[in-house]
Parts: sequence; structure tokens; C-alpha cells
Amino acid sequence: MRITDIRELSVPLQGNIANALVSFAEHTVSLVAVCTDQLRDGRPVTGLAFNSIGRFAQGGLLRERFLPRLHAAPPDSLLDAGGTRFDTAAITRVLMRNEKPGGHGDRAAAVAALELAFWDLNAKLAGEPAWQTIARHFGHTPQGQGVPVYAAGGYYYPPGHAGSLADELRAYQDQGYTAFKMKIGGAPLAQDMARVESALGVAGGDGSRLAVDANGRFDLPTALDYARALAPLRLRWFEEIGDPLDYALNAQMAAVYPGAIATGENLFSARDVDNLLRHGGMRPGRDVFQMDPGLSYGLGEYARMLSAMEAAGFARQQAQPHGGHLINLHIVTGLGLGGCEAYPGVFQPFGGYAPGCRLQAGRVWPTDAPGFGLEEKPELAQPIRQLLTGSTA
Amino acid sequence: MRITDIRELSVPLQGNIANALVSFAEHTVSLVAVCTDQLRDGRPVTGLAFNSIGRFAQGGLLRERFLPRLHAAPPDSLLDAGGTRFDTAAITRVLMRNEKPGGHGDRAAAVAALELAFWDLNAKLAGEPAWQTIARHFGHTPQGQGVPVYAAGGYYYPPGHAGSLADELRAYQDQGYTAFKMKIGGAPLAQDMARVESALGVAGGDGSRLAVDANGRFDLPTALDYARALAPLRLRWFEEIGDPLDYALNAQMAAVYPGAIATGENLFSARDVDNLLRHGGMRPGRDVFQMDPGLSYGLGEYARMLSAMEAAGFARQQAQPHGGHLINLHIVTGLGLGGCEAYPGVFQPFGGYAPGCRLQAGRVWPTDAPGFGLEEKPELAQPIRQLLTGSTA
Repeated sequence: MRITDIRELSVPLQGNIANALVSFAEHTVSLVAVCTDQLRDGRPVTGLAFNSIGRFAQGGLLRERFLPRLHAAPPDSLLDAGGTRFDTAAITRVLMRNEKPGGHGDRAAAVAALELAFWDLNAKLAGEPAWQTIARHFGHTPQGQGVPVYAAGGYYYPPGHAGSLADELRAYQDQGYTAFKMKIGGAPLAQDMARVESALGVAGGDGSRLAVDANGRFDLPTALDYARALAPLRLRWFEEIGDPLDYALNAQMAAVYPGAIATGENLFSARDVDNLLRHGGMRPGRDVFQMDPGLSYGLGEYARMLSAMEAAGFARQQAQPHGGHLINLHIVTGLGLGGCEAYPGVFQPFGGYAPGCRLQAGRVWPTDAPGFGLEEKPELAQPIRQLLTGSTA
Repeated sequence: MRITDIRELSVPLQGNIANALVSFAEHTVSLVAVCTDQLRDGRPVTGLAFNSIGRFAQGGLLRERFLPRLHAAPPDSLLDAGGTRFDTAAITRVLMRNEKPGGHGDRAAAVAALELAFWDLNAKLAGEPAWQTIARHFGHTPQGQGVPVYAAGGYYYPPGHAGSLADELRAYQDQGYTAFKMKIGGAPLAQDMARVESALGVAGGDGSRLAVDANGRFDLPTALDYARALAPLRLRWFEEIGDPLDYALNAQMAAVYPGAIATGENLFSARDVDNLLRHGGMRPGRDVFQMDPGLSYGLGEYARMLSAMEAAGFARQQAQPHGGHLINLHIVTGLGLGGCEAYPGVFQPFGGYAPGCRLQAGRVWPTDAPGFGLEEKPELAQPIRQLLTGSTA
């Protein structure tokens, strides 16, 4: 079994949306394909993945550092003992050769896109959905009950935009979503609280169906102001309150805010998560960890994060990865995590699920398509074709 | 005043050396030039810098994200109020537009190379060495006494290599260096201790003239073993004992190791340094902070790190940046820091100083060349020519 080609395409995110800190108008994602000489149904088996959503494509780092290492490795060294599957741990060691410790930023996303493509590839070689491959590898037995899901959105739209926050959430509701997440911190407190009330209206006044996300914007006084205003609403959670590395602030908030706190989407290594566990004041049984394999060296490093959480007394159901796309749906399903988000309306072509994914009573199920099933998502058809054939038609 | 061109060249490091964790045989550095329409002595003023030493070149990130933002900015928005100097803080804001918090890795080095080139440029526009520009900007008055310097090296050479560790340190001694740093952790403890004794021999048996660097390799039991063996030698310092993000391990070591501990070269943001200050157990008046502006978004972010250190009760003399090159010599001189390393024998063409830099009694002085004076370093002549003209001759 040999790799015949590895390709990367930088795909711009569609839409013109902003969170409290960042406009996504210029954001891009690396779509990666690992092509092999293996055939299934007469066609070469190709692993596909991408580096989640929300940071940037990593074509430069892939071409400068990571692909040359992979191409230089003896082909057999990338395979498991039987020679019929790729050894994702061995591949990560090859990719990380001569990388220094610390500095877990862009390279973590570059490596993740590649590593995840090998998980897709292994699942396709086995002719099964990726959640089955993942569950077997990590010794987990999924119950087939689907996973809890909420629709993430509630962004700030540019002035003059036709829709409103409530319209947006109602559109998700029409698609079958029963819980939502919205951005806060991009407007003054009073204006944000009016937005929250409007969103709560769509959620039937049930705070457990609405999370708010400050995208790491608040300093401590602002965070405390928001916490006081939000606490009576008993929301699903209060997400990324301060800078993602400000563990002390997180601990101060956990000491005073009675509801759940969510954070972790901007921690890209197990070492960083260790620090959140040690210094962040996160509460077993309550708070939510949102690390994202696609931004964090892939599934191997993500599994190390989960082990660290469990060793520190947290349940894996407290893990709900950032991302809102098919790859994380398979990971959440395969590992029995607490749930996942969905981006049904934004971050196309990567956000949200395939039409065949069942959405029912606040839960979502992957399809039986091999791998992550990215080929089943209509919005991805053109980028995948362009990646594999070069055609922009 | 206008930028006419910005160029980047990925320059391979020469030599085949390894520290405890990483071979530098495939490492590269981004050499950056910012060309302007200003003339001095009839020639266009060009700012030059590089992203320090020891991680990797960042041509991909620069071309994908950072240069397009700079080119898209209104030219006047990059200048100070008088319009005669570049506003490095404004430039950093332009570069970091739409970058999310957290993930301070490769991008920190990409931004640093650019930001530092503008410091070189501003100094050349003023016709003065960069340390003067830096001192004036940050309100510091250097005493002109030179800065303490030590020769860093003591790497593990491949088997069969002609020289020895002692030979290497004696060569630095012949150049005028009186203090040294060597790598440990790449061999078993007994073998490393023999290397340390050999190096101490060159240093006249004076532990204060020899530092050891584990490059973040040790777990706690190994760290404790080394600490017990090293403590009686009263070394200059014990550097990067564990993973750079393992603040708890650092604090445990600070509680038991009586000598100085040094760390920080793999922390690339003020947010990360905040965590070292809060959770790392560093001791005012004793331990050493080695954050490196060239890997950390440049001088603006580095100044924020120093402010955080001072606010936490540490002296700026406890800062000794990683790097060992001309850029950091000017920064240490201009800001009155505790000293700097030099790589007189390795990491060419970037390591070490220019021949005109006076080295005397364990101190080093920059020359009066405008900017960082990179043009005075013979090893850099060819890469600079290639960067500016494309000629590889």
C-alpha cells in the first residue's frame, strides 16, 4: 500500500460574518487529500479532511515542512503491522520530526488536516464510517443513540443586513435544531442582553437551550458584569469568557458564575489543556471543554487531551468539540463525547452536516458513508473536485 | 514615505548539530527586507530582520496572511504622526487583523520578522544603531557599558565528528568568551555529567561560567535526578528543564533546585508569559527569562512581556533573550536587560556578532552601524544580496 499523492487546497469560507473579535470574510480552510494505490469499487481510495473552521488554511506550512517529511519517510514505516492500514501515530511522529516543544499554533492545524485525512482513509479502507474506526481504535462502544447537537450562529451581521438574530435562529429551528449558540461581546452589555432575550424567545424562554459565546474578548470587570446579567437566565453555557490562555480569569469566573463555563477551542495541544486543568478552575460535572481535533494535531493529540481530562476527574461527556462539521460528528459519535455543535447556516462549504444525517429531538446521527462522509455534503462537491482534478468548474 | 517592496528569503542554517530534542540540519530562518522610497547616501533605505534562530522560516504564513494585510493598508496608516518613521504598533495591529486569540506559534515568528525589520528601518532612517532607537522609544537610558554575554553551544555532535565539547568551548574562549552554555539531556545522566565536568574544566572549574540546557526534555523524575547531580556545581543556570508549557514542573523544580532556573524561549506571547509568572514558581532576583522577540511578534510584544515581569516583581536584568545574534544584542543593549547569548560557532549565517562588535571581559558592545547592523556580518552578505537582488552568486 502506497501513497500516490497528497494535495492541499485553500478554500475560502463563504459569507460575511463577524464574531466579537474577528471577521471571517478572509478566513480560509485547508482541504487535504491523501491518494493511494488501493482500489475500492474500482476507484483509488482517497482520504479527505480539513483543518476544522475558524483559523486559517495551512498550505504554506504543509508544503514547507510537513509534506516533505511525509514524502521522505519509508512507505512501510507509515503502515500498521499488518500493512493494510495507515498508522496515524507513526505518521504524526514523522510529521513532528525536528519540531520543538511549545508554540502550538498554526502547525497544529497543518498537522491535524493531514492526520485526520489518514483516519478518513483508514475508515474507507475498512469500508465503514469513520466513527466505527475511531470507536474500535480507542476501545469505545457507541450506543447508536446519536449525539446531542446545537446550532451555532447568532453572529453580528453588518449594518443593513436583511436578517435578524431571531430570524437566523428560527431558520435553524425550522431545520430541526432545538438548541442554539449566539455571540456576545461585540456590542455593549445592554444591547447584547436585548439580543440574548430575543434569542431566548426563539428558544421558548428555556435557558438550557441557549449558549452564549464571548470569543475570549472580556477582561475581568466586563466578564463579571456579563456574568451578573446572564446568571439569572440559567443558560446552557457561557463560552470563552476571557483570553483562552488566561486560566486565572477562567478560575475566577468559575468561582462566581453558577452556570456552566465552556472553553478550550483555542488550546491546540495536550500541554495547553494540562494547564487549563491545573489552573483554570474548571468544575467536574459542570463545565465544557471545546478543544477541536482539527486545530490540534488531529485525533491522536485529542485523545491525549481526553485522557488528561479523565485523569483529572472530568467526564468525557464534558467534551464538546468546537467545529460544527462532519469530521467532529464522527469523532463525538465514535468517542462517546457530550455532543457537538453544527454550523447549518454559516462557514460554508464546511459547516453543518450532510443531508442524510438524521436530526431528531436535539440529536444527530452520521450516515453510513465510508470515512467522514465529506463526499455526501453537496457544498463540498466542487472544492473536492477542484482538489482532486484541478477543475474549478 | 512609502514601502516599495517587501521580500522574504528562507535561509537554511549551516552545520549539522543536534540538541537534546531536535536536529537543526533542516532548520531554516526567514530573512526579511522592507524596501522604501527613502534615500540615505543615495541608496534606498531598507529594513532587514529575521525570525531569530531555532524554529523555522515562515515564508508561507507571510505570503498567505501577513504581507497581503500590510500591502492592503493605507500607506499613511503605517507611519507615525510626523510621517517620518514607521509606527510599529500600528503595523502590528494591521498584521494581526482577524487573527484569533491563542495559538501563539508559527505566526508569532512570521510577524516578528516583519516587525523587527521596521525597527531596523526606523533606526536607519534616523541614521543610528537600533539600540539607540529602541532605548529612546521605551524611555530607557543605556549606560554604554556593554552587556554580559556567554557563548552558547555544547551541542551533541554526530558520531565520528572530529571535535569534542571541550574543543568547542576552548574555541569560544579563544574568541574572548568567558562563559558558556552546553546541552544536556541527549545522553544518559552519567555521560552528561562527564560532559559537564569536561566543560567545567574549560571554565576553570567556575560553575558561574557554565549554564546547562535540557531543551525541555525532562519529565519530573529525570529533572530531579539531574537537579541533584547538578546542584553542587553551582552552575550559572539550569535551562528549560521540562516542557516549556509545564509550569507546574517548573514550579516544582524552583522549589527544590537552589541555583537559577532559566526558561521562556518557547513562550511566544505575553499571555503565555503571564502564565509562567503566575504558575511557574519563578523566583525574583534569581531565575532567568529567555523569551525571544524574534519568535514572539517582535519588540512590541516583548516589551509587554517585560512589563508583566516587572509588574510581578522581577527585574528586567532577569531577562536574557534566547537567540544569540545581532538583533537581540541591540535589544538587550537598548532595554538594559541582563545579558545575551552568542552563537559564535553555530547557526550560521545568523549566529554570533559582527567582527566590529567589541568583546571584552565577558561583555559585548554593538557597533555604531545604522539599524541592527546585519550588513556588517560577513556570513550574511550573500543571503542579503540574494534577498535583495535574487542573485545566488
